[in-house]
Amino acid sequence: MSLNSEAGGHVVGIDIGGTNLRLCLADANGKLAHKWAAAIPRASPPEAVIDQVRKGVDESLAATGIARSSLCAVAAGAPGLTNVDTGMVIATSYLLGWKDVPLRDLLESGLGVPASVENDVKMAAIGESRFGAGSGVRNFVFLAIGTGIGAGIFLNGEVLHGEGWSAGEVGYLIVPGTAEAPADFGEPGQLENVIGGEGIRAQWRAISQENLQATEIFDRASRGDPLAAGVLNRSALLLAYAIRNIAVILNCSLFVLGGTVGLSKPFCDATQRILDERNERIRPRLTRSTLGADAQLMGAVALALNHRKTGV
Amino acid sequence: MSLNSEAGGHVVGIDIGGTNLRLCLADANGKLAHKWAAAIPRASPPEAVIDQVRKGVDESLAATGIARSSLCAVAAGAPGLTNVDTGMVIATSYLLGWKDVPLRDLLESGLGVPASVENDVKMAAIGESRFGAGSGVRNFVFLAIGTGIGAGIFLNGEVLHGEGWSAGEVGYLIVPGTAEAPADFGEPGQLENVIGGEGIRAQWRAISQENLQATEIFDRASRGDPLAAGVLNRSALLLAYAIRNIAVILNCSLFVLGGTVGLSKPFCDATQRILDERNERIRPRLTRSTLGADAQLMGAVALALNHRKTGV
Repeated sequence: MSLNSEAGGHVVGIDIGGTNLRLCLADANGKLAHKWAAAIPRASPPEAVIDQVRKGVDESLAATGIARSSLCAVAAGAPGLTNVDTGMVIATSYLLGWKDVPLRDLLESGLGVPASVENDVKMAAIGESRFGAGSGVRNFVFLAIGTGIGAGIFLNGEVLHGEGWSAGEVGYLIVPGTAEAPADFGEPGQLENVIGGEGIRAQWRAISQENLQATEIFDRASRGDPLAAGVLNRSALLLAYAIRNIAVILNCSLFVLGGTVGLSKPFCDATQRILDERNERIRPRLTRSTLGADAQLMGAVALALNHRKTGV
Repeated sequence: MSLNSEAGGHVVGIDIGGTNLRLCLADANGKLAHKWAAAIPRASPPEAVIDQVRKGVDESLAATGIARSSLCAVAAGAPGLTNVDTGMVIATSYLLGWKDVPLRDLLESGLGVPASVENDVKMAAIGESRFGAGSGVRNFVFLAIGTGIGAGIFLNGEVLHGEGWSAGEVGYLIVPGTAEAPADFGEPGQLENVIGGEGIRAQWRAISQENLQATEIFDRASRGDPLAAGVLNRSALLLAYAIRNIAVILNCSLFVLGGTVGLSKPFCDATQRILDERNERIRPRLTRSTLGADAQLMGAVALALNHRKTGV
């Protein structure tokens, strides 16, 4: 296999989600030339997703008139435990439960350029570090709060992977207000069970007949609805405990909130208010992701650009 | 000032405690040639402690017949927030509340050899990493449980300092069973307030007239005393929550317990049992410090030896 790794060309960033595939073509400065997206059919095997990626790359090159020979690296984020050294997706609860999928090799074979892979939340943290709210900051925690909760931890300018690639699985934290009983991987974690998107909806359903999304509940709270404010305050308190404990352990003050629920301004503001009122020496500073839904895609661009520079 | 930094000689490891000063003379392999200790008079200013260190070094050299010219580096652990880069003890609640003490410079002026300084708990973790239970392990957490509770966190073979030198202040963790109210630096933290040495004694005093140390209560529990077993089990549960949460965040499985309370076998065993029974994917492995009360001293030897190799 010959891999094109010339300097100065373009890269592709790939965001493999549980149900959607997104990719983008960017130049050597990370400037986007084209974005492309498609639904991933249920239970797609890895090879089918790689075929979709090839299609997306082909269409992006065609749409922009950029030559295939200018493509010099790709990187992909995947929603599961990912070994960055071997390029394997070890396990995921999405995508029909991929196990030990050699994603990097499949991408390199399929596209003919060097590839890197990373867990999706860590990839989003890399995006925030390079292009977003963590830019220029050596220590910060990116906190993705959607259905689940996960963290991408930057220490001394490097993402923390942990001894088994699962650092930052903070949805499994136990704090006052969460269940204390064990929860295993694949099951929702103790923290995300209460303040992940589904957990917040469940808090709401316990007091209301109405079917609302987490962000809708929080918006309603900010408009003065007392029932919704109760859910918001309880959720913010638990998030404040989790953030404070992470900050105590790591001595890290900046937390970047992302994910559909984490991006909610009322949620971020309420949590910051609790932390400020506590007035402890450990005083985390919260900010919402500036890249939003593109954090992971931009992380993939950053990783591909980095790879291009340092070589395979 | 001329600093003797020839290779091949001896180093001095120094353990500055709240009430005691200990130091040791070791050869280039870390083999101890002599140990020396003295009480630190109450409210000693830094200069007085340095004078004591000089006396200890003089007496150690005299006792062993090792030439002063063979001494090539020293390192000292101090019980407070310590900036390793500038060599300053930023703050400590011991020793009359030293603030911004240039400990490294004072040691270098006083002894005429290169010096390094480190926080005491992190120094003990360095000792365990080089000579003890963390030897050969790139990721582990040393947990010192005495009157207070602190952690020395090793990630990828390096001790984690954090952005303000306070990483690992885990006595301030909040878990189910601790107070949730704010606690500030200087005050006992939420976790240590319940399962630090004084916290455990307070648990006991709430149910018994007898005045016992934490380790005595735990020994009694292991001999079948049901009241003592209650205190042991409650303390072990809180420690298990804290350890599990740290392990979730860092994806680190080895925890080395040190400090007078942490070295208690019944405490370590009871905590491990709780973690094992939870049977979660995150399953921390606990082991007691093999260096015990010498962990910090041996950490200082390791740091001095390291410094000697890499130069000032």
